[in-house]
Amino acid sequence: MTRVVIHDPTLRDGQHAVRHQLGPAALRRYAEAADAARIPVVEVGHGNGLGASSLQVGLAAAADDEMLSTVREALRHSRMGTFMLPGWGTSDDLRRAIAHGVDVFRVGVHATETSLAERHLGFLRDAGAEAHCVLMMSHMATPGELAEQAARAVGYGAQAVGIMDSAGHFLPPDVTARIGAIVGAVGTTPVIFHGHNNLGMAVANSVAAAEAGALIIDGCARGFGAGAGNTQLEVLVPVLERSGFATGIDLYALLDAADLAERELMPAPPVTASMSIVSGLAGVFSGFKHRVVELSAAAGVDPRDVFFELGRRQAVAGQEDLIVDVVAELSGRGTDG
Amino acid sequence: MTRVVIHDPTLRDGQHAVRHQLGPAALRRYAEAADAARIPVVEVGHGNGLGASSLQVGLAAAADDEMLSTVREALRHSRMGTFMLPGWGTSDDLRRAIAHGVDVFRVGVHATETSLAERHLGFLRDAGAEAHCVLMMSHMATPGELAEQAARAVGYGAQAVGIMDSAGHFLPPDVTARIGAIVGAVGTTPVIFHGHNNLGMAVANSVAAAEAGALIIDGCARGFGAGAGNTQLEVLVPVLERSGFATGIDLYALLDAADLAERELMPAPPVTASMSIVSGLAGVFSGFKHRVVELSAAAGVDPRDVFFELGRRQAVAGQEDLIVDVVAELSGRGTDG
Repeated sequence: MTRVVIHDPTLRDGQHAVRHQLGPAALRRYAEAADAARIPVVEVGHGNGLGASSLQVGLAAAADDEMLSTVREALRHSRMGTFMLPGWGTSDDLRRAIAHGVDVFRVGVHATETSLAERHLGFLRDAGAEAHCVLMMSHMATPGELAEQAARAVGYGAQAVGIMDSAGHFLPPDVTARIGAIVGAVGTTPVIFHGHNNLGMAVANSVAAAEAGALIIDGCARGFGAGAGNTQLEVLVPVLERSGFATGIDLYALLDAADLAERELMPAPPVTASMSIVSGLAGVFSGFKHRVVELSAAAGVDPRDVFFELGRRQAVAGQEDLIVDVVAELSGRGTDG
Repeated sequence: MTRVVIHDPTLRDGQHAVRHQLGPAALRRYAEAADAARIPVVEVGHGNGLGASSLQVGLAAAADDEMLSTVREALRHSRMGTFMLPGWGTSDDLRRAIAHGVDVFRVGVHATETSLAERHLGFLRDAGAEAHCVLMMSHMATPGELAEQAARAVGYGAQAVGIMDSAGHFLPPDVTARIGAIVGAVGTTPVIFHGHNNLGMAVANSVAAAEAGALIIDGCARGFGAGAGNTQLEVLVPVLERSGFATGIDLYALLDAADLAERELMPAPPVTASMSIVSGLAGVFSGFKHRVVELSAAAGVDPRDVFFELGRRQAVAGQEDLIVDVVAELSGRGTDG
């Protein structure tokens, strides 16, 4: 059987579902359970990564230092991962994280902006740390563009590179094309796939990724994550095994970890609600949801129309002002009204 | 685009998730919403079909007559469907259902027992009613066996025939093989696929079914159904459309119907919990869950071991006694203990 490496961002991407309020006790208990299941990498941090705790995107319940030291103590077999977005995280954050014993760093950039990761990937390479690069909102780039960006990331020092389906927009053939192109471009460098479940396809997309040659696949307990959630880890693992991929994970201990996560980390498991389906179809960052719904209600327009129009305009995170424009236009008032 | 016909058993299969307690008001409101979305067939009834309301499998909140007349009044565009299992439903039940204006009858049988449907399919054919036959627990039969059973059902008068993935066990290649074999055996007779989401694959399996030639695909609002639930209808429809299949359904009205279903039919949308994953992997009827968990706890054995052993013994609905045997054996006490 082909081996795939499961990377578990429950304690990082799941934070988005609870406004970054996972505290040390919850982090420790899930990390211990994940470790018992022999999940290869357990990623922890603020949802937006190192240095991101802020009024703007949400203050975390615990500081980066405390999150990292807590999870470090809980892991005996699993490697510890963390995440960073250039702009939020700094080299100083990376230095401190290395001191805390992080084994795997993920640097995330928009699909066509790998150059923004150059400095941090280089810093991590020079520090002897394992650095991965993930291209977010990857449905907004063609397979060829992603392949080129991935090759560039490897040139900057990334020891693995891949894509996030941040908007949950992909169907399996989309994943096959993109992972295939990246694998073709980066040779023996491991390729990553990270799915979201807006169209109920996260597990199927992950299997398609593995079949196209991805070696590192992400999943979260019960799919813990914003909106429709991520790929459901304890479903992904046995489905990969049945599809001919070995994960080395103990199924029963994995199910126990997922049960613990449902009880102790989340108010309720993710649901694929209508607005998540619409944002997935439109290919829009689901973090826009609250603002879209709020502004649409105030203006009396259908928030679904707003999402589809944002999709046509290729809105990305940071462009929240575009929501105001689109709502105003659809309500027939114009932005000067 | 190839046309597929969506068949919506929210008001029948969903009943399993609420112990058959959907009352007339809830039935009417969902049926009106489904009708507004132009869903081709709206199926209603006790979870186990006509005549099944009983202490043994659960007393329904409303009698068959009331459920059928309520939904009949609510539908102006959609056709009305109902379900029956030979043994529960009788010819008299079918006669009354015809009088209530049912347009489409589904007769369900275990995957290898089509002969049990002969009398009812013949009765419906002679009465001029549209009758479909669905093979349940279809993972327990080979593609060749299913093709043979399906051809037999057509011979008995079925105007459509297909399979239910009752245990939620299939992955897409399993579906492709089975639907392909059935399509090959029944020629122009429409082929049906009905999925469950135990392995997170219900939507992907349904797309695989359509691609293999299935013309009738089932889905429930929010996946409403027992355990991990059915194929999520309002995800299925846009994913089919993106995959090249036309459904004729209005997306926004469909999302509205699903939102109404979440608010008014269910305490919470289905979750793919650990025991549902195990029953799906084991290929065991999820209705066994409560009894497996209860007996396992009393005997101090792991219910997951019980599920996998029941799967090896090919347990089917009606064989609940087998649970007692397996639990006793795994606890080392034997059945005479």
